[in-house]
Amino acid sequence: MNMFFNPRSVVVIGASNSPFNLGSTICRALNEYSPYDGKIYAVNRKGETVHGCPGYVSVADIPDTVDLAVIITPAKVVPGFVRQCGLKGIKRVIIESSGFSEGGQEGREMQDDIDRTARLYDMRIMGPNCLGVLNTQNKFCCFYGIQEDNFDMFVQDKGEISYVIQSGGIVVIVLESFVGDVVGVNKIVSIGNKSDIDEADMLEYFNTDEDTRVIGMYLENIRDGRRFLDAAKKVKKPVIAFKVGRSSEGAKAAQSHTAGMANNDMIFDNACKQGGIIRAQSISELHSLPKIFTHMPPLKGKRIAVFTNSGAFGGITADLLVDAGLEMAKLSDETQDKLSRTGQIFNVANPIDLGPALSMQTFLEIFDILLSSDEVDGLLPVPSLWHPMVIDAIIELTKKCWVYGKPAAIYTPNSVQKTISYRQEYDVALFESPEEAVRALKVSHLNWCYQNIKDETSFRRSCEKQLSGETGLCRNMIQSV
Amino acid sequence: MNMFFNPRSVVVIGASNSPFNLGSTICRALNEYSPYDGKIYAVNRKGETVHGCPGYVSVADIPDTVDLAVIITPAKVVPGFVRQCGLKGIKRVIIESSGFSEGGQEGREMQDDIDRTARLYDMRIMGPNCLGVLNTQNKFCCFYGIQEDNFDMFVQDKGEISYVIQSGGIVVIVLESFVGDVVGVNKIVSIGNKSDIDEADMLEYFNTDEDTRVIGMYLENIRDGRRFLDAAKKVKKPVIAFKVGRSSEGAKAAQSHTAGMANNDMIFDNACKQGGIIRAQSISELHSLPKIFTHMPPLKGKRIAVFTNSGAFGGITADLLVDAGLEMAKLSDETQDKLSRTGQIFNVANPIDLGPALSMQTFLEIFDILLSSDEVDGLLPVPSLWHPMVIDAIIELTKKCWVYGKPAAIYTPNSVQKTISYRQEYDVALFESPEEAVRALKVSHLNWCYQNIKDETSFRRSCEKQLSGETGLCRNMIQSV
Repeated sequence: MNMFFNPRSVVVIGASNSPFNLGSTICRALNEYSPYDGKIYAVNRKGETVHGCPGYVSVADIPDTVDLAVIITPAKVVPGFVRQCGLKGIKRVIIESSGFSEGGQEGREMQDDIDRTARLYDMRIMGPNCLGVLNTQNKFCCFYGIQEDNFDMFVQDKGEISYVIQSGGIVVIVLESFVGDVVGVNKIVSIGNKSDIDEADMLEYFNTDEDTRVIGMYLENIRDGRRFLDAAKKVKKPVIAFKVGRSSEGAKAAQSHTAGMANNDMIFDNACKQGGIIRAQSISELHSLPKIFTHMPPLKGKRIAVFTNSGAFGGITADLLVDAGLEMAKLSDETQDKLSRTGQIFNVANPIDLGPALSMQTFLEIFDILLSSDEVDGLLPVPSLWHPMVIDAIIELTKKCWVYGKPAAIYTPNSVQKTISYRQEYDVALFESPEEAVRALKVSHLNWCYQNIKDETSFRRSCEKQLSGETGLCRNMIQSV
Repeated sequence: MNMFFNPRSVVVIGASNSPFNLGSTICRALNEYSPYDGKIYAVNRKGETVHGCPGYVSVADIPDTVDLAVIITPAKVVPGFVRQCGLKGIKRVIIESSGFSEGGQEGREMQDDIDRTARLYDMRIMGPNCLGVLNTQNKFCCFYGIQEDNFDMFVQDKGEISYVIQSGGIVVIVLESFVGDVVGVNKIVSIGNKSDIDEADMLEYFNTDEDTRVIGMYLENIRDGRRFLDAAKKVKKPVIAFKVGRSSEGAKAAQSHTAGMANNDMIFDNACKQGGIIRAQSISELHSLPKIFTHMPPLKGKRIAVFTNSGAFGGITADLLVDAGLEMAKLSDETQDKLSRTGQIFNVANPIDLGPALSMQTFLEIFDILLSSDEVDGLLPVPSLWHPMVIDAIIELTKKCWVYGKPAAIYTPNSVQKTISYRQEYDVALFESPEEAVRALKVSHLNWCYQNIKDETSFRRSCEKQLSGETGLCRNMIQSV
């Protein structure tokens, strides 16, 4: 699978200098926008060079071995080119063309033809009807139609999150939404009709891929429920999956888009629960939530301490935490006394009302009191950014979270525009709404429970230690979150 | 009530030139940032002029009648100043100081004292523990602590939405979020502990206020459930209300913030249903949803046509519409034929897949076919902005919606940052997520049902016409949305 993301040489079949040619945009991106240093060839009717990539009339004419073929031609000539690739010894093929099983009987027959060829020559096929892959590490990207400014914006290299996305439109939103975020994409694969490579293959690959810390999925159907569940059970990383088609209307729409069987959504839902996959409630969660995994330690219990200097948000977040199945931490008299002694706090019961003005020193004392307390598993800070000192305090808080091994999902009560600009300017993990921050805490805890169920002995040990050791508690925890 | 928003003269009691004086920030805003042309006086211990506003030692010394007093002094001297106002004949008083019923027994006693004085002199009191009022029409704003750049940013004059907000923190978020939106604030009132004026008073006032088209509310409790319900039943405008305290933990937090009784949330919920108030699911809905009322005709039925050029969103929106109790419109063969004849569409069944490239002419034809069809009550367009022509088409669509009397909740599948910047640049009502667009359609329909139940005869007539006239259908519609 690695060869799809790190090919030493690639041929773009269907790239020419004709106007509006999509293949040429792939050659352009690889050879002109990207520092990718593998060899790039083009195949077209005239054998012409495309954006500096040597062109040939046939795959057989390429005077070198080729790791990966990208095919972007009219559907009817694709089966022939797949055979050329087989004969040439190319083992990895991405078919970006559409017009196969999503388009009716004739398309399905062509897809069957391709499948037979692939088996014959022992090739792996990605697609058809897809965008292929993006690897931000070596900047290899075979998406068609990408412009230079988009390439520079999208293909940043700080990403630790890898995605399996069954639709080009979602790829664009995810990439766009990460611009200026503290997290980003490591690899994306758009698997389209998945005649061969499917979500289970990708889950297995990203699980072993060292650069990937969190896995995101957008799915319109599951090709093989059993295999998917087996793969999910083995994954040791957080997986967040959005699936369309909860309703029969949605399933019908998805079917006409990427040709999958309209799966029963209940089956997928059960697979997520059994396989330890977090089901996203909206597509925006695919990019908004991973930062709780990359930028914070896991939430190992349910007891959350809220602190804010905007009284309204004490109540709002308390409601949201209860809705989410988490709990407002009950602070003992001793802890409340410690908070009182910091001198300036309005209300020391949880939610803690900081009042309008605190010094940096007081902020730091509060962080230590709460994070060191065995009454608290995690924090939900809602500090309004009325003074530059507050952002400095937030940055210190993120460091302390790692020291104490407890997470904070930080929401600053401002407009989304302002939150995004602060996150970008100070490179700190801020969530965009109180709902998103609470959801982040919930998925952090849910993933911690899932990973520990996968390793049940150590999980039971942690449960016993933390939660007085009732039998059966582990599974109950998941059910109740 | 009008005198609170349009006073001819105002005195700020507690405004002085001492460092960190909050009253002086009110004088500064009114006299320096705002073109407000009423008279402004200050009352302080030295009788000194504050930011150009003549100062007096006592209210009695002011050589003129005064419409409105704003009190921002330590709590313990407030009752005395309220009496001075009564003696001076001032009938409207805003008490911004905190430290009353939200702070314990002593505070409650002072609040009782104020209430007695108010009854004696026939005065209306707003607050205590509040920010007071903002009227963007005459730019009268008595919020304390506001800075000049915030004043210019927040106090814009295109607003048609008026708010009753029981917390200063929420006021700031709402104002900030409207920056660059197509809608904005007309009036805001922060009513705090509401010892006298409460949410029911404000609902009645905004219902009669000609400049207000939509009413938003943030509440931590309801002072008088019966009065609130009576007021709600008479309101002829859309009302969107967020209430904190759904859980007992949230109610407890709200109580310590603005001192209300922890109401049973079920009672509020029932009052909303009976009174025709739309309950917001998050505080962001207070600013995100009103544009469906100000910028689109109402949704009179449930049948929605979706069109998109990003196939994934066909399925995503179909799921969301079904979840929301709306319906995917079933397009007849005749309508599908008409769509086919436009020549370039991938899939003419609903959700309609436009395919990658359409001309302006095709867009306009599609709008006319769908909006004129009696199979369709409203549109959910999800066009990606791949070409400047698409935004021109969207602008034409918004005009056609008024011609046909059917709404479109438009979502462009891009990052939130990009959607906000397009909305600002082209002054067109775009929603920020598919969830928000679907929710907007739902609340539009819900409000239409509510308003018509309030006027039951005409409502039954519309139901019969649209929905084949089953008895009892009206109330069923609301229950099922």
